[in-house]
Amino acid sequence: MAEEKTIHVRVPGTSANCGPGFDTLGLACTIYNDLEIALRPDPVFEIEITGEGASGIPRNATNVVWTSAQYLLKQAGREKEFRGAWMRMHNRVPVSRGLGSSAAAIVAGLKAANVWIGNPFSRRDLLQFATAIEGHPDNVAPAIFGGFTVNIQADGGETECFSFLPKLRLKLVVAVPDFPLATKKAREVLPDLISRRDAVFNAGRVGMMIAALVEGRDRYLTHVFEDRLHQPYRESLIPGMPQVLEAAREAGAIGASLSGAGPCLIAFVLQERHRAREVGEAMLQAFRGAGVTSRYLLLDLDTKGAHVVKSEEKA
Amino acid sequence: MAEEKTIHVRVPGTSANCGPGFDTLGLACTIYNDLEIALRPDPVFEIEITGEGASGIPRNATNVVWTSAQYLLKQAGREKEFRGAWMRMHNRVPVSRGLGSSAAAIVAGLKAANVWIGNPFSRRDLLQFATAIEGHPDNVAPAIFGGFTVNIQADGGETECFSFLPKLRLKLVVAVPDFPLATKKAREVLPDLISRRDAVFNAGRVGMMIAALVEGRDRYLTHVFEDRLHQPYRESLIPGMPQVLEAAREAGAIGASLSGAGPCLIAFVLQERHRAREVGEAMLQAFRGAGVTSRYLLLDLDTKGAHVVKSEEKA
Repeated sequence: MAEEKTIHVRVPGTSANCGPGFDTLGLACTIYNDLEIALRPDPVFEIEITGEGASGIPRNATNVVWTSAQYLLKQAGREKEFRGAWMRMHNRVPVSRGLGSSAAAIVAGLKAANVWIGNPFSRRDLLQFATAIEGHPDNVAPAIFGGFTVNIQADGGETECFSFLPKLRLKLVVAVPDFPLATKKAREVLPDLISRRDAVFNAGRVGMMIAALVEGRDRYLTHVFEDRLHQPYRESLIPGMPQVLEAAREAGAIGASLSGAGPCLIAFVLQERHRAREVGEAMLQAFRGAGVTSRYLLLDLDTKGAHVVKSEEKA
Repeated sequence: MAEEKTIHVRVPGTSANCGPGFDTLGLACTIYNDLEIALRPDPVFEIEITGEGASGIPRNATNVVWTSAQYLLKQAGREKEFRGAWMRMHNRVPVSRGLGSSAAAIVAGLKAANVWIGNPFSRRDLLQFATAIEGHPDNVAPAIFGGFTVNIQADGGETECFSFLPKLRLKLVVAVPDFPLATKKAREVLPDLISRRDAVFNAGRVGMMIAALVEGRDRYLTHVFEDRLHQPYRESLIPGMPQVLEAAREAGAIGASLSGAGPCLIAFVLQERHRAREVGEAMLQAFRGAGVTSRYLLLDLDTKGAHVVKSEEKA
């Protein structure tokens, strides 16, 4: 069906934690979900979905893109004007793999609805809405702002996000194993109490990573992707994880870590030395050694975050 | 006694932790200890000390400036050539107050000995030596490098330090109460286990602080000086601490925290809004309310770290 007015938004996949930044660091990468949408006055839905996970996504009013759009419309007091939608989605972000597919859907719905009603809300507002819907800001923040992000929860419960682009060029190599992992399950294995020593280990690495990235000093990145707060506990859920991380480093990555709650593993490769493809092959082989089939994605850092695709870009 | 050749070294006082960066962040400030030294072949010591804590500092071979100098000479295999020294010290850094007086002494001895024998060691080497002597890098790192520092301990036990100068100008207001606090005692009150939530709280703030300082974005500094890893446990050791921190913020500081293990408290004031003096007065008054006599220092960030004072500077 041809709508008179449609909005086309593009939202990046994201990788949270980046090693030591459990529940605080994230990055957006150049793999995108596309959403074209037209809001309608009547509660009628036409939803076309292609790409990653298409068969498992609801085509009705429970679709999370729609419920997120609706959330924003409510915040604007305009939910009664728009009770249905035409939507066409093409998803490239793998589902339940630790690349923020759920965050991408939420942000797509929020962004599109905001544009539809004339952008009453800032990106900072969208971050609050998306965090409320998703339950945590780790993936929605980079999906909205792009680049690398640092999040904190302020006293009043608001999420603050600082987004920056590193002064050095990183290639991101993401190994995607062929099994999903529910974030909930990956959270259950984490202890509530940790040693102060491990907290210091991670906080120092977060600090040095950000300083080194912002100032573009690659020599200080050697140790900063290490983690003691979540990865050691999650190893048991992902066959081959330590071997794959080690293989990535041996093949030339400056660091490698779990992507979000996994099961994807992400390697960081300095572009000037770029051995990204070799790193990807090494990761695949190490996964294979553990009996896991996988593929890899060669990505860059996304610099824009969620944005409207202009008609000339659509061709 | 007049020596033919002397070396004059100046070392800044330092403040560790900076709120959330327990055992990982530090800064150097514009308050200095001066050391003039001449190494001698014979085990004879002449030591003159003036300034802070002068009466309590040993004037013999157990003096920590000398034992640190000796440590470096040993590393260079030259300890037998120099078994005594003439030293003149003038100390401005208050002793046992959380401003790195012990680190300043260690770094002064190392730096002076290194210069004396023709600078065989880099600043990174001095950092390893100083960390070995002091037991932790928090104060010795900024004393050596100046600026803000982030430290991590690498796998092999080596200390890595990233030093940077913020793009925004901070005034440092340090309230110095009139009682000392032993770091050992301040460590004993800390629990070994902490909640993962508190670890995330601090790591996020470390990350955002550094990003905001390096990029000069003051609006992101509002929450970043908060801490949950050590300050709550140390409050009981410093009468009036929460009131003084609160008074500093109310008087216009962007944040305030314990300096190292205390008892000094440090407030961060953006220079363009500079209300540093009012902040200092407010801190004094709050200490007074808790029955504590104190004074305050108005300092800037030191940008050089330990350095040789040229003769023209001496006038």
